[in-house]
Amino acid sequence: MMGEFELIARYFRRPVRRADLGVGDDCALLRTAPGMQLAVSSDMLVEGRHFLATVAPERLGHKALAVNLSDLAAVGARPMAFTLALALPSADERFLAPFARGLLALADASGIELVGGDTTAGPLNICITVLGELPAGQALLRSGARPGDDVWISGTLGDARLALEVFRGTVALPGGDFETVRRAMEMPTPRNALGIALRGLAHSAIDVSDGLAGDLGHVLAASGVAACLDVDALPRSAVLAARPVAVQHECLLAGGDDYELAFTAPQARRQAVVAAGQAAGVALTRCGTIEAGRGLRLVDRAGRPVAATFRGFDHFAPAAAP
Amino acid sequence: MMGEFELIARYFRRPVRRADLGVGDDCALLRTAPGMQLAVSSDMLVEGRHFLATVAPERLGHKALAVNLSDLAAVGARPMAFTLALALPSADERFLAPFARGLLALADASGIELVGGDTTAGPLNICITVLGELPAGQALLRSGARPGDDVWISGTLGDARLALEVFRGTVALPGGDFETVRRAMEMPTPRNALGIALRGLAHSAIDVSDGLAGDLGHVLAASGVAACLDVDALPRSAVLAARPVAVQHECLLAGGDDYELAFTAPQARRQAVVAAGQAAGVALTRCGTIEAGRGLRLVDRAGRPVAATFRGFDHFAPAAAP
Repeated sequence: MMGEFELIARYFRRPVRRADLGVGDDCALLRTAPGMQLAVSSDMLVEGRHFLATVAPERLGHKALAVNLSDLAAVGARPMAFTLALALPSADERFLAPFARGLLALADASGIELVGGDTTAGPLNICITVLGELPAGQALLRSGARPGDDVWISGTLGDARLALEVFRGTVALPGGDFETVRRAMEMPTPRNALGIALRGLAHSAIDVSDGLAGDLGHVLAASGVAACLDVDALPRSAVLAARPVAVQHECLLAGGDDYELAFTAPQARRQAVVAAGQAAGVALTRCGTIEAGRGLRLVDRAGRPVAATFRGFDHFAPAAAP
Repeated sequence: MMGEFELIARYFRRPVRRADLGVGDDCALLRTAPGMQLAVSSDMLVEGRHFLATVAPERLGHKALAVNLSDLAAVGARPMAFTLALALPSADERFLAPFARGLLALADASGIELVGGDTTAGPLNICITVLGELPAGQALLRSGARPGDDVWISGTLGDARLALEVFRGTVALPGGDFETVRRAMEMPTPRNALGIALRGLAHSAIDVSDGLAGDLGHVLAASGVAACLDVDALPRSAVLAARPVAVQHECLLAGGDDYELAFTAPQARRQAVVAAGQAAGVALTRCGTIEAGRGLRLVDRAGRPVAATFRGFDHFAPAAAP
C-alpha cells in the first residue's frame, strides 16, 4: 500500500502555474491582484449523504470540485485554486487514479490548480476548499434582492433528485432517461462563467444545492423580501417534464444537488441578463418576481396558488415514507 | 436534533471583524494587504488517527485549529481566518458546545475568525483550512537550508508520543506526569509568533507533526543538503528525560504530534535567533548543523554515531509489535 507522500506525488502533484507555491511545503502561497477580494468556501462530501457508493470515482472527483466551484459561481468569483483533504479507507489505486482524473479534468477546464491539502486513513470523506477572486465590492450576495427584481434560474432543475429517486426505488425510468438524469446528479456543471458575467447585473444570487424553495428562502430571508414563483415556468428537462406533476414539483422545488444559479436582477436589465447567459453558454429562465414582505408564494402560469408543503425525502412517495 | 443551519448559528456564528464577509453566504470574502502573499493549508483530523475517542471535546476543538495554525507558523504567516468542515454522527450539544468553545478560544487567542465551512452527518471528521498572510517573498520554506546553518527546535519534543504510549499500554506514568504529557498531546501550542519573528532570519522551517527525523528529512530533501543532529541536545521534558534512553530517542525523533518548529539559520545569526525566541516567549534549542551531502546523521554529545532505525509505532515496544 502506498504511503501518504507517494500517494500525493503520484496522483495529485502537478507543476503550479498561478500560485507562487503549490503542494509540497507547509502551506501554499498565492497572491490576489490589487483591489481584489478573496472568496473562500469549504464543502465536505460524505458517502450516502452527498454521493452514493455506486458513483464512478471519476465522476466523484468531478462532483467534489464542482460543488465547491458552484459556491464561487454564486458570488461571482473567478476560481483561482483549491485544497483537497481526503480520508480514505485505503490507498486504493483503482479509486485514486480515476478520482484524480475526474477532479483534475474539471480543475483544468476551470483554469485552477490544486495547491495543497491532506490525505489520511479513515472513512471516505472529501473536503475541498476553493479560493477565488473578484473585484472588491462586486460580490453577488444573498442579501441584495429588491422588490421588483426578476427571479432567474440557470439550466434546469430537478434531474438530480429524480435520479436519486430511481436509486431509491420510488421511480422507474427507461435506461436512456436514467443515464441522462444520473449524469445530472453525478456530473453537475458549476456556473462560474455565468456568475462572473452577472457581476454588476444581478442584485443577489445563490447556488441551488439544497432545493430551490429552501435556497431561494435564504435569499429572501437575507434580503428581507418576499417572492412569487411561477412553478409552471421553472426550467426542467424533457425527462422530468414527462413525470407526474407532483413528482415534478417535488424535484423542482425540493430536489437539491442542482448546482444551478438562482439570482435576481432588475426588470430593466432583462436584455443584459439574457446576453450574460448567452455569453456564458447557459440557458436562463425567468420564473418569478421579488416582492415586498416575507416568504415564498408559489403560483401556476395563470397566477393561481400552488399548494406545496415540501418536507424533503419523507414527502416524496409512499416507498420513501417512514 | 438541531439542523445544520441552527447548529452553525448557535455554536459557530460570530460577528466578523477582519473579513469583509463571514459565515452565512456562499463564500467568505477577505482581503490581503498590498504586497502580501496568502498562505493556505488544510488539515483533516480523523478519530483514532489524529485524536483518541477519550479526548475532551474542548481540547479537540483546540487541537483541530492548532495543527492548522502550526502550518502557518512553519512558513511565518500571520493567521487571518479559517473555515471549518465538520462531519458528525449527530448534532450532539454535549459535544458541540465544548468543541466550539475550545476552537474559538484558540481562534480568539490567535486573533483570527471562523469565516465559513460546512456541517454534515457522517463519521466524525474535522477539516480545517487556515488562511494567513505574509510579505511576498518572505515565507520560510523547506527548501532554504544551507550547509553551515544551525538546526534549531522550539519547545520540547516527544511528550505527545509518550502520552500515546500510555494510552496504548506500553508505558506507565504517575498520574501527574501523565496529565503533563497528555496535555502536550491534546493541547499543542502553535508557534505562530515565533514563525513571524523568524522571517528574514531562518533559512528554512517546518513544523514537527510526523516526528523530527521524518520532518527534518523533508527539509533536507527539499534543500538538497544533509544534517548532523546531536540527539543528546534535543529538548525534552523532565517527564520524558526520566524514561529509558531508547524510549526517549523514539519519542524525540519519531514521535509526531509535537507541533514545534524545526528550523535552520546561519551561525552568524545565533544572537538574533535567541532574541526571536525570547520575543515569542518560547525556548529554542540548537541541536545540529546542516552539511553538504544527503541524509540525516545522528550523534551523541561526544560526536559518536547513534544507531536508530525508526519504523514508527511497530518499532516502539514488544506490546506494540505485530
